[in-house]
Amino acid sequence: MPGFPYFSSRQDVIPGSVFEKFQAKMASHGQNLMKLHIGDTYLPTRYPLPIASSLLEEHPDYNRYCNTFGLGSLREVLVDKLLCDNSLQVSRDQILLTAGATNALSISMMTLLNDGDEVLVLSPAWPFFFGMVKVAGGRVVDVPFYMKLYEEPGLDIADYLGEFITDKSVALYLNTPNNPSGKVLSHGQIEQVAEVTRKHDLWVISDEAYDGLTFDDRPHISIASLPDMFERTISIFTFSKSLMFAGLRLGYLTAAETVVKCLNKMMVHQIYSPSTLAQHMMVQPVATRAEWLPAVRQHYQQLRDVMAQRLRLDAPLPEAGYFFFFPVAEHLHGRDYWEVVEACLDEGVAVAPGDSFGASYGTYIRLCFTGEPRERLEKGIDRFNMVLFGRHK
Amino acid sequence: MPGFPYFSSRQDVIPGSVFEKFQAKMASHGQNLMKLHIGDTYLPTRYPLPIASSLLEEHPDYNRYCNTFGLGSLREVLVDKLLCDNSLQVSRDQILLTAGATNALSISMMTLLNDGDEVLVLSPAWPFFFGMVKVAGGRVVDVPFYMKLYEEPGLDIADYLGEFITDKSVALYLNTPNNPSGKVLSHGQIEQVAEVTRKHDLWVISDEAYDGLTFDDRPHISIASLPDMFERTISIFTFSKSLMFAGLRLGYLTAAETVVKCLNKMMVHQIYSPSTLAQHMMVQPVATRAEWLPAVRQHYQQLRDVMAQRLRLDAPLPEAGYFFFFPVAEHLHGRDYWEVVEACLDEGVAVAPGDSFGASYGTYIRLCFTGEPRERLEKGIDRFNMVLFGRHK
Repeated sequence: MPGFPYFSSRQDVIPGSVFEKFQAKMASHGQNLMKLHIGDTYLPTRYPLPIASSLLEEHPDYNRYCNTFGLGSLREVLVDKLLCDNSLQVSRDQILLTAGATNALSISMMTLLNDGDEVLVLSPAWPFFFGMVKVAGGRVVDVPFYMKLYEEPGLDIADYLGEFITDKSVALYLNTPNNPSGKVLSHGQIEQVAEVTRKHDLWVISDEAYDGLTFDDRPHISIASLPDMFERTISIFTFSKSLMFAGLRLGYLTAAETVVKCLNKMMVHQIYSPSTLAQHMMVQPVATRAEWLPAVRQHYQQLRDVMAQRLRLDAPLPEAGYFFFFPVAEHLHGRDYWEVVEACLDEGVAVAPGDSFGASYGTYIRLCFTGEPRERLEKGIDRFNMVLFGRHK
Repeated sequence: MPGFPYFSSRQDVIPGSVFEKFQAKMASHGQNLMKLHIGDTYLPTRYPLPIASSLLEEHPDYNRYCNTFGLGSLREVLVDKLLCDNSLQVSRDQILLTAGATNALSISMMTLLNDGDEVLVLSPAWPFFFGMVKVAGGRVVDVPFYMKLYEEPGLDIADYLGEFITDKSVALYLNTPNNPSGKVLSHGQIEQVAEVTRKHDLWVISDEAYDGLTFDDRPHISIASLPDMFERTISIFTFSKSLMFAGLRLGYLTAAETVVKCLNKMMVHQIYSPSTLAQHMMVQPVATRAEWLPAVRQHYQQLRDVMAQRLRLDAPLPEAGYFFFFPVAEHLHGRDYWEVVEACLDEGVAVAPGDSFGASYGTYIRLCFTGEPRERLEKGIDRFNMVLFGRHK
């Protein structure tokens, strides 16, 4: 029987660290251990770097390899963050730093899936996730979900999802707040998703990249905070969205310690570890998020409202995140969908085609309201309106 | 028939970028394209960062996603570097930035191997590479090689390697300068390796992580610079060793453009891209390497000589890199090998056990001479000597 609590057979073929069993002994020496076992340099970089000298001095390890699970200081502030913001009471050993949420999702699939295993992908879903399932040999079961919840908030989720379960189902991919739809699941809705995964022994991949960016004071619920859910869930977060640093390529996950160890073993075979320097840089921003994050969220909410007002069609109002997502089928007026996407480019506005987000969204469009300053955003929306509706509606 | 020029069947299941076909059209707009298609923020980070304000101002994209092939400015200086240092005349489109050489090796295996495909791993070899072959479903064919070349420089390499070829062989992993042996292959030796791969249609994974760190003015030859070798070779480099920044997790590779595109597709499904900020930080260090690298190399060579003098046993003198690698079987005096490794830890010196580097090295030890300052290095060597030989030889 596949699914929770079993791992992919790849876990058995890759070796763990030979030093793991010696860790306590090595730590017992403190600074008196001469480390001739790793391949590293003790020298600082010998060229000018655009980094504050205070960081270089306080953290002389900035240019060296670090613990592949992540810096202790960063995992420490993340323990607090996960408790305060996500109601997840975890220890430092239940956290793994990764090269963005992307990397966390990739190693999750490589760690959980054997050939032919099925993953319920609640869609619309982040396009790269489909590829990750396939790279790991899995099969995507595309479950139209989030747009349905806008139309039918009272959907019997447990019943609905049950129809997609087969004896090959091993995991479910949940992404709330959702990219691209902006849907945020309520506590009751998440409990129904949880119930399905408990009943069918599914792993849960909980992609919470847009955690911290909900609007109108809407709460974000982490599914792993529900009863009996932590052990089967890999909760995945990033520094790219609410922390505003996509260009740093840093993310993290929390899961049971056994799961974290398996994921780490897979990660060291993909990237070794995320950047030491990047991790040092993120300790303070996480610790001080209450001081600056509300203003960012407020700003994004204003941009959302700008787009809602200016867009000349009806689209579900995003409850979180960066995007509007909506169908344009009835505005094509005989034109081919891709012709319209290309016409947008000709007009000078790039839009994301819907079909990458799932099989049901071939005539949807995703628009981002946070990637351009307000003036350019408005110009972009106007151009989009023009392609769809001409100069006047 | 597997091997060059065929890719893994995984290539077919993962989709490419939907925007690729629109790239020229998008570029034609320049700054006048309103980018509502990607999920990003236009805001700079809203918290203090320990980064020079000059970088933040010159590169306002520092916190944003970048081209997944790498920053143009960095690929530009790497074009020069590859020509000057490696005799590789490549274009910008033949370069891919990665999250360290680790990531480049990982995506290479995932892109080239189908289940059961064999990879000739010339050993001793970097331990994680064995796992990468297995994660991708491949089979490691462990070929004892570099230590043999110290003993038998005139080895008929073409003949010797030919014995390990089967109809399942698809790739050969070459690592010169070699970790852990410090062996640097001569032009003639590399030509013989090349000959085997041409004859048997093998891909070549050329791990050149220690490029730039050869001693005694020994030249490093990139196998892809030999006739008819570029198309079948993925040449892999890192910013961790000669650039001294393992903690940045940045690397790069060069290969034929078709190969680079396939590798990129795999990489975006593992990490999306390496860090934008890290890439900006490395443009100048690469461009100015002639000013600071010779002194670093000279310093490492002195540390090598310190270890050579102080170590109370005969070991091949490393021709490059960070390590000594040698057998201790005849110094065990009835003790178990692992008992000795553990005794080193008890004495306060960590050493790397040889068996991770290949099946033939179960009683070898690797010692790093660059990871600790000279005084601590000497203390470490003394402790190691003491475990092996007692207080007096």
